[in-house]
Amino acid sequence: MSESKSIAKLTTNRYGKSRIRLMRVTRHDDHNDVDEWTVQVLLSGDFETVHTLGDNSKILPTDTVKNTVYSVARSSSAGSMEDYAKQLVDFLLLRNAQVQSVEVVIASTLWKRLTVDGKPHPTAFMRGSDERQTATVSRAQGGAFAITSGLEQMTIMKTAQSGFVGYIKDSLTTLPETTDRLFATALKAEWPYTVKAIAEGIDFNKVRMHLREKMISTFANHNSLSVQQTLYAMAEAALAHTDIIDEVSMLMPNKHNLLVDLGRFGQTNPNHIFVPTDEPHGTIEATVRRA
Amino acid sequence: MSESKSIAKLTTNRYGKSRIRLMRVTRHDDHNDVDEWTVQVLLSGDFETVHTLGDNSKILPTDTVKNTVYSVARSSSAGSMEDYAKQLVDFLLLRNAQVQSVEVVIASTLWKRLTVDGKPHPTAFMRGSDERQTATVSRAQGGAFAITSGLEQMTIMKTAQSGFVGYIKDSLTTLPETTDRLFATALKAEWPYTVKAIAEGIDFNKVRMHLREKMISTFANHNSLSVQQTLYAMAEAALAHTDIIDEVSMLMPNKHNLLVDLGRFGQTNPNHIFVPTDEPHGTIEATVRRA
Amino acid sequence: MSESKSIAKLTTNRYGKSRIRLMRVTRHDDHNDVDEWTVQVLLSGDFETVHTLGDNSKILPTDTVKNTVYSVARSSSAGSMEDYAKQLVDFLLLRNAQVQSVEVVIASTLWKRLTVDGKPHPTAFMRGSDERQTATVSRAQGGAFAITSGLEQMTIMKTAQSGFVGYIKDSLTTLPETTDRLFATALKAEWPYTVKAIAEGIDFNKVRMHLREKMISTFANHNSLSVQQTLYAMAEAALAHTDIIDEVSMLMPNKHNLLVDLGRFGQTNPNHIFVPTDEPHGTIEATVRRA
Amino acid sequence: MSESKSIAKLTTNRYGKSRIRLMRVTRHDDHNDVDEWTVQVLLSGDFETVHTLGDNSKILPTDTVKNTVYSVARSSSAGSMEDYAKQLVDFLLLRNAQVQSVEVVIASTLWKRLTVDGKPHPTAFMRGSDERQTATVSRAQGGAFAITSGLEQMTIMKTAQSGFVGYIKDSLTTLPETTDRLFATALKAEWPYTVKAIAEGIDFNKVRMHLREKMISTFANHNSLSVQQTLYAMAEAALAHTDIIDEVSMLMPNKHNLLVDLGRFGQTNPNHIFVPTDEPHGTIEATVRRA
Repeated sequence: MSESKSIAKLTTNRYGKSRIRLMRVTRHDDHNDVDEWTVQVLLSGDFETVHTLGDNSKILPTDTVKNTVYSVARSSSAGSMEDYAKQLVDFLLLRNAQVQSVEVVIASTLWKRLTVDGKPHPTAFMRGSDERQTATVSRAQGGAFAITSGLEQMTIMKTAQSGFVGYIKDSLTTLPETTDRLFATALKAEWPYTVKAIAEGIDFNKVRMHLREKMISTFANHNSLSVQQTLYAMAEAALAHTDIIDEVSMLMPNKHNLLVDLGRFGQTNPNHIFVPTDEPHGTIEATVRRA
Repeated sequence: MSESKSIAKLTTNRYGKSRIRLMRVTRHDDHNDVDEWTVQVLLSGDFETVHTLGDNSKILPTDTVKNTVYSVARSSSAGSMEDYAKQLVDFLLLRNAQVQSVEVVIASTLWKRLTVDGKPHPTAFMRGSDERQTATVSRAQGGAFAITSGLEQMTIMKTAQSGFVGYIKDSLTTLPETTDRLFATALKAEWPYTVKAIAEGIDFNKVRMHLREKMISTFANHNSLSVQQTLYAMAEAALAHTDIIDEVSMLMPNKHNLLVDLGRFGQTNPNHIFVPTDEPHGTIEATVRRA
Repeated sequence: MSESKSIAKLTTNRYGKSRIRLMRVTRHDDHNDVDEWTVQVLLSGDFETVHTLGDNSKILPTDTVKNTVYSVARSSSAGSMEDYAKQLVDFLLLRNAQVQSVEVVIASTLWKRLTVDGKPHPTAFMRGSDERQTATVSRAQGGAFAITSGLEQMTIMKTAQSGFVGYIKDSLTTLPETTDRLFATALKAEWPYTVKAIAEGIDFNKVRMHLREKMISTFANHNSLSVQQTLYAMAEAALAHTDIIDEVSMLMPNKHNLLVDLGRFGQTNPNHIFVPTDEPHGTIEATVRRA
Repeated sequence: MSESKSIAKLTTNRYGKSRIRLMRVTRHDDHNDVDEWTVQVLLSGDFETVHTLGDNSKILPTDTVKNTVYSVARSSSAGSMEDYAKQLVDFLLLRNAQVQSVEVVIASTLWKRLTVDGKPHPTAFMRGSDERQTATVSRAQGGAFAITSGLEQMTIMKTAQSGFVGYIKDSLTTLPETTDRLFATALKAEWPYTVKAIAEGIDFNKVRMHLREKMISTFANHNSLSVQQTLYAMAEAALAHTDIIDEVSMLMPNKHNLLVDLGRFGQTNPNHIFVPTDEPHGTIEATVRRA
């Protein structure tokens, strides 16, 4: 453990705080809005002696990073995770010359306004699904912002227009071909914004809503020959929607619903009764770029 | 392990299968419906020698119980979990004289029809929140059904009309009084149906929908002096809605959102920025009966 | 929501704090010991007007309950969860005449001392398995303690001396008989102590260790004809060990390992390659009493 | 969704099967051994038309990938995850010319032989902690193996020789300096093997055991001035142990145990009673290379 003549050298390294949870209640005259975010902040820089000598004089404590998240949230009036993250990144870069770059990752939890007696309630809410909206914002001292938005754990299923035939058969094949299967997935998608769009300014919430709708409608309406083909069509639809993105990365687990073999009991099963499963699952991932 | 002169005797005992998952796709001319259920079946009876002698001649294997769940689901046209569970219980009682009573517990997972281009899509769906609808149906050989419905993990929050003052203060008190706090909970509620209602027949889905609405609207509109008071008001509203139930049991964790102390940084925090927490949490539970 | 002439009345009710986490470091001259506990405290009493009128004058806040857990832990020198829980119960009963009874439930997390260079390290530890030791201690004002100890999530498996034959076959049977299967379970066991033993005093940690060993050795050595028979033998071994308990409740899920059908690929599979599964699982539960 | 003149092009893409679970029982004359693995297999190649045209003629179904995992496990006598993964990769590359490269990731679950009556039991086991041993093996057609081993979720804690002082203070600092704090982490570490070592052959299990011991002993004995410094010392100890690795990547969350402020109740708290927390947590990560 002596540092006299080290056999080792530090290469990439980062540190910060994860799972900083924040509930923001925005109070209007006649109603409230709520945002629930989970924030991670990671700092990079020349932290060689921190590691080799235990020199803490360059360390902004992760506890202070946490305090910063709350303090900036209070003074911010950002309407989106991305705009808040930009403020947070710049706040940290400005006050910490020893930090070379900052990355902020935020995931937001869905809350939906309750409907009571047929009307939206001004101050009561219900948790939505496990879908999370995500934002990753990073910047180096003196550099430009890199911003990627996304969503994850959006669990969707179609019960028609999905088949899987014509694949390779070998001595280990047991899967029967089908022209009618359930297709269920928990979508993760991420789209970096172009340098030009970031420079000009983006309405992040609006873009996210529209891209999400495009992906959902493509999933629902696609005549799917494979998960890969549907994934690609969804990415293509996203790219077709707006030129402020040039790339979409998609991860679509194939969450299998297995048709129960009821023939053993003298019963038919015309795609009626399935066993939903969590494991194993197919994994399909791809990045699609503007041609 | 000798059975010659045992020092022990078997008292209560049950066995069966848990976490039997089932996806049912009901195919109509122009659209599909989906139900996802997780089923548990427990069998009770005189299983003394099963335990003491390893005599398996009285055991219906849990694997067969699983098969039964799927087979009965196929032949059933039940519109609700409760009606299906009744069929499953009777199927097992009829074929298994060695079984004294059967209990079926079902939890359903929320799936919502996707809206595409402003219209409900006939065959595409999205997972809802972690809220689960529950049903417990049991019957002994020759007896009547006992049926309890409920819901759990319904996470709701109100950002107004909630305070907590006037409580006991002692040397260990640190909680400040407040007339304006966030009130978040993950409701669990259960309501057994009256013997009369079960005999006459119940539209379980409709009752559940209405009781759920009553509890939600009461939560939203209540001027809450404590979790206990709001819980009671919600139960009372449920009982007031229908006389086919005489009792409601409620469990309402108090999922705390802690106001961030920003005064340390020279900032105010007028109930704006909170830390949502999972632990520790308050636990409030009560059973409320018709007077 | 009107309280004028309520249709409802409060019956059973409890409240308190759950998931209060505590790490206790006990510092000796040459080594430290650590205990990690998760505590739940529930209070019962005449809380009618709390619920119906929002009268908080009888409520000890759950936040104060949390503070009490930490304060009593500091002043306590209890060597076991049970002895600490007894102190906590009595502390709350003494100071809160409005409380009729208190129940404390504690689960402890396993930490094991690290072995470094072949020797136990005085101050470094590693998390153990997900097994939790549990204790439930309750008392009413003026009454005696009721104390139950237990363990849960103790995942054990045997790869020999387990079969399952001679069970009921019917038209829904697909399970083949086997004289050699994997038997895996995640044991939950609970044993209330006799009134006499509680009055005389118990070395809870020692009893727990011995009962745990008895159950484990019986599981390992039993020639199992069914989960039920092994469960019973384990309970019987526990009762045979000590007369300070007269009853053991056991819950043993049957966590199936499914033999992979490799015959489809021209391969044998002599109980060599299995698929471990989490769902569905068998559920076997029984309470065994001293005869 | 039109493919006529696509605006999009496919870039990186992979597919395969995840969470394939496998329990292997190796039967010796007088005892059994068990291995529980969770396997992921991802295939890369020229799958352009799969995505754009729904041409499945190049797809080896993920269901077949799953079957392959079990079939190869049966025919393999590999003693380590890494050696099995190498066989699996080569099996898939040989039979699937359309696949350009294969990556296999395996995580193993800890099972420990039970001790009964002071002796290791030949056929009974207990689940260990949540620590997982990991292996990543990849190869392109005609290329060399890349092999990285590691471990994750190894939760360790030291109650002495850990402090944190001398860090940056600013207007958002609230953390007090301390020369005596609890230091708990859930280590993730990964070490790629050198090309030379892979070519010459490696006893993967032995290397893993020794590197793990080095990291643990360094953690236990280190006089820690920061998480970063201890992380670096652990990585350095790993590199000093063997020249078959030239690099170690470490991720060490700082899982905070917060000292309870008992002064509010007139009590001292000399590092005795803490609140263990899961969130937020510090995140410290670094890759250390041979100098």
